Amino acid sequence: VSISDLGEFGLIASFAERLPRGEATLVGIGDDAAVLAMPDGRVVASTDLLIEGRHFRRDWSGPEEIGGKAAAQNLADLAAMGADPTALLVGLAVPAAESADWVQRLVAGLARECAAAGATVAGGDLASADAVMIAITALGNLAGRAPVTRAGAHPGDVLAVAGVLGHSAAGLALLSAGLDGPAPLIEAHRWPHPPYQAGPEAATLGATALIDVSDGLVADLGHVARASGVLIDLDSSRLPSPQALAEAAAALAAATAAPGAAAGSDPGDVGVPLGWVLTGGEDHALAATFSPQTPLPPRWTVVGEVREGRGVLVDGRVFPGRSGWVSFGDKY
Amino acid sequence: VSISDLGEFGLIASFAERLPRGEATLVGIGDDAAVLAMPDGRVVASTDLLIEGRHFRRDWSGPEEIGGKAAAQNLADLAAMGADPTALLVGLAVPAAESADWVQRLVAGLARECAAAGATVAGGDLASADAVMIAITALGNLAGRAPVTRAGAHPGDVLAVAGVLGHSAAGLALLSAGLDGPAPLIEAHRWPHPPYQAGPEAATLGATALIDVSDGLVADLGHVARASGVLIDLDSSRLPSPQALAEAAAALAAATAAPGAAAGSDPGDVGVPLGWVLTGGEDHALAATFSPQTPLPPRWTVVGEVREGRGVLVDGRVFPGRSGWVSFGDKY
Repeated sequence: VSISDLGEFGLIASFAERLPRGEATLVGIGDDAAVLAMPDGRVVASTDLLIEGRHFRRDWSGPEEIGGKAAAQNLADLAAMGADPTALLVGLAVPAAESADWVQRLVAGLARECAAAGATVAGGDLASADAVMIAITALGNLAGRAPVTRAGAHPGDVLAVAGVLGHSAAGLALLSAGLDGPAPLIEAHRWPHPPYQAGPEAATLGATALIDVSDGLVADLGHVARASGVLIDLDSSRLPSPQALAEAAAALAAATAAPGAAAGSDPGDVGVPLGWVLTGGEDHALAATFSPQTPLPPRWTVVGEVREGRGVLVDGRVFPGRSGWVSFGDKY
Repeated sequence: VSISDLGEFGLIASFAERLPRGEATLVGIGDDAAVLAMPDGRVVASTDLLIEGRHFRRDWSGPEEIGGKAAAQNLADLAAMGADPTALLVGLAVPAAESADWVQRLVAGLARECAAAGATVAGGDLASADAVMIAITALGNLAGRAPVTRAGAHPGDVLAVAGVLGHSAAGLALLSAGLDGPAPLIEAHRWPHPPYQAGPEAATLGATALIDVSDGLVADLGHVARASGVLIDLDSSRLPSPQALAEAAAALAAATAAPGAAAGSDPGDVGVPLGWVLTGGEDHALAATFSPQTPLPPRWTVVGEVREGRGVLVDGRVFPGRSGWVSFGDKY
């Protein structure tokens, strides 16, 4: 059954059946707009576009994974303000000849990631287009907390991260090389699992700045450094570097027969673990700055410090490579 | 200067300079998410996609007009719930080779329509793509009013409309025929001006159902009839039919040398005024049902009644033509 067979309204009705209605949803799918309870008196709102061939490839990811990843990257933006996710609105452009099943599976992936974050899908729009395009707006609730922006880091603060770093980038490198493992890294690229609860936790702990790592750690810390007017110095020896990343680098080196790409060389090289950790986005780890007196729960790892100055250093030096994804340059 | 010269962050910075910050904007452009005051404790949220070649043509509309129309159609969805517009989030996909000036003019159109509706642009996302695609989410505030859905129309209610009908469809027919006038209709197609204040007004008056006419009057009343479980009978003699529509029909008939297309023939024909009024969307007029005792302000015109039954009739008969825009069928 193609989308044009089912029609816009038939397809929307089939979504509405499959999507749980959230407790905060006062008016849901099927009217001119959704109405959501925001008892805090504020709403946190973020929007993102994902475009086929640029942000995902349908030969590398199934529809559930594309939907799950689209939801994750938007829900992570709410966590990065210290908010709890409430709902997504989903604009979906698909070729009219696409199967209704493919779209329903994409929506199922969206719904599953929403459930993991405590949110629901409250509305959307459907249109036909030549390529798949997903526009998501995520709405969240601060539950009385002050929002944590990028602008509050102070000299003397510690820098800490929660969640994984470099896994998605390693998975992308493996897929690009035609490899199918290590599987956990490829899965991390297809469907990241941001540490949603770490966002409200950081806000409650009094984080001075908070961001999600979507473009790459060095690039995103650059936004914090700029907005806060500070220097951030990363200590690479404190960054998590799991064995899986070393295995991926070894597998890639073997596959490409390029010994220079093996683990341990230039960290600006995206073929090595530290390069993935420093420049890989899309895991949607959270990075926060805290006063050095703040007792940090175990999911936070201190990886650097904030000083007077401007910009981002790695081990006291300017980072030699490119710092992350470039929106009007990079492409799958 | 192309977008790729300026870069994503340069372009966003240039927008932020040009966009007024709303009073409700607690955190605006440039962080992970916007934070907006919603003192009502609820948020009304709607999302729409506009895709080049499907919803607009760059040879028919300038960037200001494309932006203004994109904003208008989303802000109208808020009015159609009885809400006051607060803010837009704008996802914008554009070819990297496009000029920064073109995009800035589009954003200026968005900002101008927002100002007309009492809203601002509070955030967004930029991506590169082969064609221009605009994903807008509009957020609004009910200010203590109950939302007016499509589901509350009762037998005995009157049906009334506020705003213009058929102007945008007539303008589209003129553009499609290569004509450049009557200018007000072509302008109405390029940049509609929905009657935003009529939405909260209808809610305050106790409207039982409310919708904006985006697909076509008959089609959109079909949504109300279905959601409310009623029959809606339109009285075509009460529908506004301004002289400009008759002039447009005459101009088209002369241009196409098809005398059968002249005013007064089959209302299912989109080349005649009544056809435009009944099936043309995109003016974003509001249609509402009210208890017959409700004293209606002058901007509302009673054009029909609600009865027991199902569906929509025009002058007591089933409408002979197609009732409006079909999302997975129609194309510019």
